[in-house]
Amino acid sequence: MNRIFNNPDFVVEDAVRGYLKAHPDILAATENARVLRRPLAPQKDKVGIVTGGGSGHEPAFLGYVGDGMVDAVAVGEIFSSPSAKAFHDAFVAADGGRGVACLYGNYAGDNMNVKLAVKQAAKHDLTVKTVVANDDVPSAPKDEIKKRRGVAGEILMWKVGGARADEGADLDEVIASAQKAIDATRSIGIGLSPCTIPAVGKPNFSIEDGHMEVGIGHHGEPGVAVMPIKPANEIADLMLDHILPDLPFEKDDDVALLVSGLGATPIMELYILYDRLAEVLQARGMNTRHLFIGNYFTSLEMQGVTLTMMRLDSELDRLLSAPARSLGLTRI
Amino acid sequence: MNRIFNNPDFVVEDAVRGYLKAHPDILAATENARVLRRPLAPQKDKVGIVTGGGSGHEPAFLGYVGDGMVDAVAVGEIFSSPSAKAFHDAFVAADGGRGVACLYGNYAGDNMNVKLAVKQAAKHDLTVKTVVANDDVPSAPKDEIKKRRGVAGEILMWKVGGARADEGADLDEVIASAQKAIDATRSIGIGLSPCTIPAVGKPNFSIEDGHMEVGIGHHGEPGVAVMPIKPANEIADLMLDHILPDLPFEKDDDVALLVSGLGATPIMELYILYDRLAEVLQARGMNTRHLFIGNYFTSLEMQGVTLTMMRLDSELDRLLSAPARSLGLTRI
Repeated sequence: MNRIFNNPDFVVEDAVRGYLKAHPDILAATENARVLRRPLAPQKDKVGIVTGGGSGHEPAFLGYVGDGMVDAVAVGEIFSSPSAKAFHDAFVAADGGRGVACLYGNYAGDNMNVKLAVKQAAKHDLTVKTVVANDDVPSAPKDEIKKRRGVAGEILMWKVGGARADEGADLDEVIASAQKAIDATRSIGIGLSPCTIPAVGKPNFSIEDGHMEVGIGHHGEPGVAVMPIKPANEIADLMLDHILPDLPFEKDDDVALLVSGLGATPIMELYILYDRLAEVLQARGMNTRHLFIGNYFTSLEMQGVTLTMMRLDSELDRLLSAPARSLGLTRI
Repeated sequence: MNRIFNNPDFVVEDAVRGYLKAHPDILAATENARVLRRPLAPQKDKVGIVTGGGSGHEPAFLGYVGDGMVDAVAVGEIFSSPSAKAFHDAFVAADGGRGVACLYGNYAGDNMNVKLAVKQAAKHDLTVKTVVANDDVPSAPKDEIKKRRGVAGEILMWKVGGARADEGADLDEVIASAQKAIDATRSIGIGLSPCTIPAVGKPNFSIEDGHMEVGIGHHGEPGVAVMPIKPANEIADLMLDHILPDLPFEKDDDVALLVSGLGATPIMELYILYDRLAEVLQARGMNTRHLFIGNYFTSLEMQGVTLTMMRLDSELDRLLSAPARSLGLTRI
């Protein structure tokens, strides 16, 4: 294991402390060490935006706290859900009096803890409504779409929800826009290597060298196929073959595209992949209006890539264009 | 090898094409396929800023082309110098009539090709002056400081030179500021794993698993010591022990700090390291006025980290603060 940490059981604590020291203009501590907020949160008369999830996906989740984005985040152990108390305390940290939209990903632990936290909040009259991201196409067939996992599409959902809240929308309107965002979004991941949680010390899943796993999850959840690594162009085609027909994306669609490395794939390889993606989308008559390429949602030092696409209407286009400022995504 | 490419001999071509498709607002092609420029370059009556270097260090070098930064870049093969012709054509692409500052790193191939290109440019009355970055402390002792390599300190040098050119300074003034910037900058790298050039197919240097190489170069150039991987805090201390006494950095210094992953080190680990760096610098009475943490200057999928520090005077502080917009570094 070639990694940089002190005590493997305290990597999250140590990293969060570093983040807080590094970015006091963007991230502020709360009384709960596992909850961070925007320095401006709670912002009076704005719907609060909350998310949360396991660590090891940086810049997700805490890197999307910021202006026009997320107000407060619940931070879990590596690849583990934050506690119900952390979600609850994040709701309180984000609540400016107009309720809280909790926009998170579809994982068993997160579902359970968010539900508990929402109930707890209701007891002291804090209204929290939720959108559960399920953009990961290979994780379940379309007729079981509610079973799909949430992956990098969450970033676009946060952007949309955050911008809608900034416009002064009420809680139901923010929830409706965020739900529309994730309903119009599809993702797929390709894994080329496993990754190692420092406290475990060895990978808890394996990908044979020279092979790739299509549809792999962010924690090594099994995909739909394992095969020898294909050339970049074929990888791009294969990803598009999974997600384009699923929505479906069609000719003349305006789209947002997010290509994220999983942590250890060189940035230049994401651009090699994008070169083909752009070619195919153009040939199919789609118009890429928003583009993000980089390490936006990672899995420690896993090699591989995720592709996320959102079909835009005028509202989603407007909300993705709105100003935002966070460590992971800034729009000026 | 768990990597994403088509033909291993054309990874640079394929990636550059992807970059140009992805970011037409930031990067423009020139007649030379190995030279990219700002869409606004050449900018009349502004000193042009040029750099160049081998590929595989993304976002360096092409990711620092942008407003307030670099006007044109010469792109080399992976870990290889761009040709003299590419440097020359970059000078032409950047020349707005007030001369060109070529700000690059101290490597044999780059030195040779820049010198040839400068001579060639002089033949048609294009004045090019150079600053050679040599911020990598472990690569040579202080009494042979001119032999040191240029590493991530180049980014701060480009930022300073680019901002000075934007202020309307003449060529000698831009060169003086960029030289001052790199003279006030020190860096060190720690490698935890080797990396593989796709066309080679296997690492061309090795680091034993569980070990780290102190002072390693961006292409696997030997460092000053190999040892079992230390805890993060000791790695931070060790890096500071090398660079603080070398300048030296002292109590009450204002500094800029840049912590860059080498490509495959999870971002959270950079923050674990920063937590300690911040603690030590504060204890020593230094004031970090500019901070950059992320993958700013990489070596493909190498694991490890570089630390760069610049001692600021009021001019360097002003120039680092100036607006800039590039893929690798944006200031608003």
